[in-house]
Amino acid sequence: MNRGKLFIISGPSGSGKDTIMQGALKKHPEIKLSISSITRDMRVGEVEGEKYHFISRDEFEEMLKNDMLLEHNVFVGNYYGTPKAPVEECLANGNDMILEIDVNGAAQVREKMPEAISIFIMPPSFEVLKKRLSGRGTETEELVNKRLTAALSEIARAKEYDYIVVNDVIDEAIDDLLSIILSERLRINRQKQIIDEVLEKC
Amino acid sequence: MNRGKLFIISGPSGSGKDTIMQGALKKHPEIKLSISSITRDMRVGEVEGEKYHFISRDEFEEMLKNDMLLEHNVFVGNYYGTPKAPVEECLANGNDMILEIDVNGAAQVREKMPEAISIFIMPPSFEVLKKRLSGRGTETEELVNKRLTAALSEIARAKEYDYIVVNDVIDEAIDDLLSIILSERLRINRQKQIIDEVLEKC
Repeated sequence: MNRGKLFIISGPSGSGKDTIMQGALKKHPEIKLSISSITRDMRVGEVEGEKYHFISRDEFEEMLKNDMLLEHNVFVGNYYGTPKAPVEECLANGNDMILEIDVNGAAQVREKMPEAISIFIMPPSFEVLKKRLSGRGTETEELVNKRLTAALSEIARAKEYDYIVVNDVIDEAIDDLLSIILSERLRINRQKQIIDEVLEKC
Repeated sequence: MNRGKLFIISGPSGSGKDTIMQGALKKHPEIKLSISSITRDMRVGEVEGEKYHFISRDEFEEMLKNDMLLEHNVFVGNYYGTPKAPVEECLANGNDMILEIDVNGAAQVREKMPEAISIFIMPPSFEVLKKRLSGRGTETEELVNKRLTAALSEIARAKEYDYIVVNDVIDEAIDDLLSIILSERLRINRQKQIIDEVLEKC
């Protein structure tokens, strides 16, 4: 069986990353989404194992100590990370997997799995980004500027990625993302079997 | 302006390569097709500059001498080749170009333009290949076997390519080919401009 591929997807808030990923996964449900392990408390409406695994700080630190994470991060005093084992299992079973992480996490995964393919989702322009981050216009200018600064510092690292998808028209961005994932399946390292099959018969 | 990309497409007869290429170019007419220069006589129905440029043997040998060809080949006493200049101009203008050549020509182009992306079109199985090469069943077994041998010797070199498209269902193969071409446009080297644009505005 051919090994699956790991796709790292990053993008600042305002890039529409989540909508694009949901659209792509809906069209291709065979693509798996990695689930992060986090130490913060579960919020109302959240379900264990849906988007996150909620684990204790001790459990997380044990995983860290045993090098069981592909990447991790600390945010507002809580740990966030991607356990290695489920990713490894998914790929070994021949399934492609998406890892939605930030630019720091992406750099850590590239270090550990250089074969991972990384995709950065971009807003089409500074103006659109600013508009999207202003939300319904109810936010203070200070908050909008804070969000903008965070988004721009992520965009400044977009050049570390293999592919850039510009989210101007959402359906086109979904197709762009899928064309990257599907074309990676056509790469020679995934296709050697068919060549051997045809040649063996002769 | 971003430089266009050169896509080498090869595949044995029976792979359905021409139908797939026509289908892809119909959906994306902005993709240019390279025109070979050849020294054989024009056949009835052929038009100068449509699929081939018909040139004299002297002209061809002059081009060879001046290293003006990306690749060339001799077939039944005639020269076939791809002039460098139009390919270079097309890419410089930001347009993607398809070069339809055989495995030998592909190897020559890879040597001169290592950035070219090569795609091999495969039949889905030995049985289907044999069936397609038998045509309407009017050919002699000898002719079919000769075609099969030629096809298999091309397939034996498919591993030299970046991507393999298996032509089982024609529409899927067209979409596969397009997903390769379109995803290559999303690679970071074609997308740096948009990153700079967004960052410059802030």
